[in-house]
Amino acid sequence: MKALVYHGPGQKAWEERPRPTLERATDAVVRITTSTLCGTDLHILKGDVPTVGDGRILGHEGVGVIEEVGAAVSSFAKGDKVLVSCITACGRCAFCRKGMYSHCRDGGWILGNTIDGTQAEYVRVPHAEMSLHALPTDADEEAMVMLSDILPTGFECGVQNGQVAPGDKVAIVGAGPIGLAALMTAQFYSPAEIIMVDLDPNRLEVARSFGAGQSVDSRSGDAVRQVLELTGGEGVDVAIEAVGIPATFDVCQQILAPGGRLANVGVHGQPVVLHLETLWAHNVTLTTRLVDTVTTPLLMKVVRSGKLQPGRLVTHRFSLADVVKAYDTFGNAARERALKVVLNA
Amino acid sequence: MKALVYHGPGQKAWEERPRPTLERATDAVVRITTSTLCGTDLHILKGDVPTVGDGRILGHEGVGVIEEVGAAVSSFAKGDKVLVSCITACGRCAFCRKGMYSHCRDGGWILGNTIDGTQAEYVRVPHAEMSLHALPTDADEEAMVMLSDILPTGFECGVQNGQVAPGDKVAIVGAGPIGLAALMTAQFYSPAEIIMVDLDPNRLEVARSFGAGQSVDSRSGDAVRQVLELTGGEGVDVAIEAVGIPATFDVCQQILAPGGRLANVGVHGQPVVLHLETLWAHNVTLTTRLVDTVTTPLLMKVVRSGKLQPGRLVTHRFSLADVVKAYDTFGNAARERALKVVLNA
Amino acid sequence: MKALVYHGPGQKAWEERPRPTLERATDAVVRITTSTLCGTDLHILKGDVPTVGDGRILGHEGVGVIEEVGAAVSSFAKGDKVLVSCITACGRCAFCRKGMYSHCRDGGWILGNTIDGTQAEYVRVPHAEMSLHALPTDADEEAMVMLSDILPTGFECGVQNGQVAPGDKVAIVGAGPIGLAALMTAQFYSPAEIIMVDLDPNRLEVARSFGAGQSVDSRSGDAVRQVLELTGGEGVDVAIEAVGIPATFDVCQQILAPGGRLANVGVHGQPVVLHLETLWAHNVTLTTRLVDTVTTPLLMKVVRSGKLQPGRLVTHRFSLADVVKAYDTFGNAARERALKVVLNA
Amino acid sequence: MKALVYHGPGQKAWEERPRPTLERATDAVVRITTSTLCGTDLHILKGDVPTVGDGRILGHEGVGVIEEVGAAVSSFAKGDKVLVSCITACGRCAFCRKGMYSHCRDGGWILGNTIDGTQAEYVRVPHAEMSLHALPTDADEEAMVMLSDILPTGFECGVQNGQVAPGDKVAIVGAGPIGLAALMTAQFYSPAEIIMVDLDPNRLEVARSFGAGQSVDSRSGDAVRQVLELTGGEGVDVAIEAVGIPATFDVCQQILAPGGRLANVGVHGQPVVLHLETLWAHNVTLTTRLVDTVTTPLLMKVVRSGKLQPGRLVTHRFSLADVVKAYDTFGNAARERALKVVLNA
Repeated sequence: MKALVYHGPGQKAWEERPRPTLERATDAVVRITTSTLCGTDLHILKGDVPTVGDGRILGHEGVGVIEEVGAAVSSFAKGDKVLVSCITACGRCAFCRKGMYSHCRDGGWILGNTIDGTQAEYVRVPHAEMSLHALPTDADEEAMVMLSDILPTGFECGVQNGQVAPGDKVAIVGAGPIGLAALMTAQFYSPAEIIMVDLDPNRLEVARSFGAGQSVDSRSGDAVRQVLELTGGEGVDVAIEAVGIPATFDVCQQILAPGGRLANVGVHGQPVVLHLETLWAHNVTLTTRLVDTVTTPLLMKVVRSGKLQPGRLVTHRFSLADVVKAYDTFGNAARERALKVVLNA
Repeated sequence: MKALVYHGPGQKAWEERPRPTLERATDAVVRITTSTLCGTDLHILKGDVPTVGDGRILGHEGVGVIEEVGAAVSSFAKGDKVLVSCITACGRCAFCRKGMYSHCRDGGWILGNTIDGTQAEYVRVPHAEMSLHALPTDADEEAMVMLSDILPTGFECGVQNGQVAPGDKVAIVGAGPIGLAALMTAQFYSPAEIIMVDLDPNRLEVARSFGAGQSVDSRSGDAVRQVLELTGGEGVDVAIEAVGIPATFDVCQQILAPGGRLANVGVHGQPVVLHLETLWAHNVTLTTRLVDTVTTPLLMKVVRSGKLQPGRLVTHRFSLADVVKAYDTFGNAARERALKVVLNA
Repeated sequence: MKALVYHGPGQKAWEERPRPTLERATDAVVRITTSTLCGTDLHILKGDVPTVGDGRILGHEGVGVIEEVGAAVSSFAKGDKVLVSCITACGRCAFCRKGMYSHCRDGGWILGNTIDGTQAEYVRVPHAEMSLHALPTDADEEAMVMLSDILPTGFECGVQNGQVAPGDKVAIVGAGPIGLAALMTAQFYSPAEIIMVDLDPNRLEVARSFGAGQSVDSRSGDAVRQVLELTGGEGVDVAIEAVGIPATFDVCQQILAPGGRLANVGVHGQPVVLHLETLWAHNVTLTTRLVDTVTTPLLMKVVRSGKLQPGRLVTHRFSLADVVKAYDTFGNAARERALKVVLNA
Repeated sequence: MKALVYHGPGQKAWEERPRPTLERATDAVVRITTSTLCGTDLHILKGDVPTVGDGRILGHEGVGVIEEVGAAVSSFAKGDKVLVSCITACGRCAFCRKGMYSHCRDGGWILGNTIDGTQAEYVRVPHAEMSLHALPTDADEEAMVMLSDILPTGFECGVQNGQVAPGDKVAIVGAGPIGLAALMTAQFYSPAEIIMVDLDPNRLEVARSFGAGQSVDSRSGDAVRQVLELTGGEGVDVAIEAVGIPATFDVCQQILAPGGRLANVGVHGQPVVLHLETLWAHNVTLTTRLVDTVTTPLLMKVVRSGKLQPGRLVTHRFSLADVVKAYDTFGNAARERALKVVLNA
């Protein structure tokens, strides 16, 4: 089969690889029909993710069709359409039992990281019963592939951890795909106000069309002042960090009202300074989370009920064989006005 | 009347001051019968608390007898024995309505800070209905005065925010009075293990007698390694920071298991470095809190039921008139083996 | 002044009464500008509420203007526009401190019950600081008067107690004003489906226009079967009882999925049969609640944000002096297609 | 092998049966070393449980040694000591994913019910990964076998559902093994008072030795009055129903304070009358639950930490071959002063 293979920092190729086969009774092999690119894939290509070695097939998002299942897999059969979760979960270790699939002792984020991933014609998915979700044959694959990673990430790490509630004032710092996923799902809880912060005017405009009531252009360097002004000086109940750098984290900690929640979603590469000399007395809660994908079934229900349209995040489409071009587009997201770039097999 | 008055950094005196009188219909004047010293009082004397000005009577903990009440106070009458809460709460602002008395718009921590405090023969208590608690005439005043501040602080900021639960592994970093208050109240929830970390062997010994199953002497500089060793390399479910300096905060963030809670109790004077480059993916929760004293009625019930003996924290006693000597003892806590120093009027 | 006075079962009159005056320092006197009728008022007139005696002024909902405040009231002044809560709360008793204002030891539902109420030109409101809410001068009074009772009742007793969550299937049994209030506020949490059950086709049609996705006409006597059919045989996650008779309670207990929540809102006059012989193993939660009105400030925020339009519940308007006619209309709600009947002073 | 086989109401025999074998890749076969009898087994023998047919091997509690595992079972191997959970869970259906193992679509309570059980020399356990728990070789088997059913039942259905909290007043109605399990585990949360209600003075005495502060002999018929008297007329925060008949349920609903929780644990054979005509306004929560055994790993930790000694529930011991005699003793529990009767293989 063909697959997108990583060959060290800056090096990738669409090349021939052996088709995966079942290794354990709990595995499934899935033929990929739709996949997509994630910001994390760009990090890997920069060499920032040391667990990914030369020869690894990238990708942790996908929709496809079951090709083959192991002896212990009874929920799925050849021909079933499925969503591949970015998180693999055994379902029975201590972490899985408390819903922390991200830290599964025999799984977690392994696809396109420590085992081969979904930017390929076929992928082997371990612990298939817990790591795949059945889709109806007529499912909107582009909408559904957003549920492999980005929607549960924005929802679990941002909205649920931030405890967004009716009447809240919410700020989301970062209007990329993850920030927009948080924006879409924050609206499940009817906050009074959502303020979007970014330095790309195009993304802020998109955010407004997705339901943000206010937007703050942070190029001016005074995002904190602007958010405080928009909240009558009180600050926000929930600040969602959806970038992953010290500057955006710092905005979040400065705009929190007493009693506020700071939900970190961004992937950070360096430490941040936490201003405990003021925050110690502000009764705040700060959370971090690698997505557990425990809410994927719920999000599937909400998509089916029509209350969530994740397909709106898709701005570009390529055939799977053109994945290298897709990376070029996604790697220049601002210039290309790209949000999610979809690959169709 | 006589009172302990602050006169700028390093300066204090037991001197004559006018007896306080009612200023508002919701006030009460209380004759102090028992008071105590808090680490915060030492911070004030170092000049670290800019809201405290020259001439302020110190102290925010006390038990006493009602001398006079305003027209709007119906729950208390002259002669009633009461506990003075370190937090003053109007009970009706938006913060009070959600139980965040610490941020009351007409209260919060004001006693011995922005208004005169309890290290005096008499004190005026605003919003008396919410800020005083009725005590039976035969109450153990030394035990009860621990409920003005230190017990609710350890319990609310440490134990409740840390969500201590049956079976948990808990580490408390700092075995001073606040850390010991967290230790006593953490046991309400039957954690499997409590590990106490401090650099004073005497305090660690006290902690063991108060119920800590393990103790870690941090003078060696390898507290992190020791705690990890005691937890089979897994780390703790809850880390309670009860000191307030970057070094102890850093221990806490390094010993947290995935999914763990870091409850900050310490008063910090400077920022800390938060290692988001690893923690972003560890599903942790970090909380801060200025005590709200919402649990004071509950703690009074538990004291009455015999399941909590806060009087065990008292190591030294002075007459109120000897408060200056009491400060000398408390200021040399390690050498004097002092925990809480009580003042009897 | 003039007021609507109860004179025993079936007897009421719009008659002259002395204008109320301040009795305690915490009271306020409010001149009523808008009031409304509640199903409970009809129960009183039937003689079903023994705490209401001859001579009582009825009514527990209202918007008005402060006429006078007691010495201990500092948040309000003569001329302020205010919302009167149906629940009076001292804010400081043990029940108030845990947010159970409905059981306030010096309040609860007393207006138009054990003290004179709001269907009058003036009303005395005890514990004014906790029992009134400031309104802007240009507030939509008809919308706001829905927040005296009916909206918080539907929201707290039905939606919050029912723990409505994104993706849930919800059934609301009873499409009167309270059921519709539950319907409006259930949508704060984006359930996948809301099924409205009633025997009045007009009310079901209204419910659909208010956001119910499905409606079940219960005149056929097979509401249970219909709801199960609409849920693929699984039953609902949340059943909200908004009528108050054994038959509707019985529907609720029969349509619950395992793990479901039954939130009782209706006022019941007789016992019900609870089928523990099957429910014991179904992991269900059943709640009851007299509204606490703790969410009134939140609901006011949501109304201001435009996400809630409670004024849509108003179908009829009368001048306050015509309150007797208003009762005639409201007493024939089905025939008159009446939901909420508003009184304007 | 030998097993205790049910042959219709009142009929049982210790007889020869084929040794169970693996049927699915996820199965394990366990050689039973310790088992015990449950009140439910007596119900079955009375013919009260229609799902149990002639020829069924009874028993759903056990400790044993792995004899054989299916191809998909990787956590256990022949020779491992294990605890058998009374609930079988696939771990991946919608119910299992939310921790409701009791309603697992391919499990739940099936052992000794719809498939052969543990009162036998060998038992086949489906979904072994989720339904067995590893024990150290030197585990106290008698203590651990209490964790198959009774301890998680008392804890989950009674204590957790009842939300027992520090300072609470708790009543447990029924001092049989389940009520005592609730009593033991309620103490994890340091309630201020636990009142035990039963009509057997011996069991009340046992309850006191297990930590009940108060006991109420209900033979007098005035248990409600006694409990109210013990609580100063206020009623209890939590009432745990641990019998399963209308009379004991009725006591529970009458002793609840406003805001209280009624946690039903008992297995009911008939409906009860619920007094909504008073409870509708009392802000109460009533829960039912078939044990999910999600807390078994936690309870194992607490047993290992020494804070729980479930072995104290064992009053009688028989060899497995004498299981018929064991039933005689257990069936006359009051006369024999029997709590849990253990079977040793």
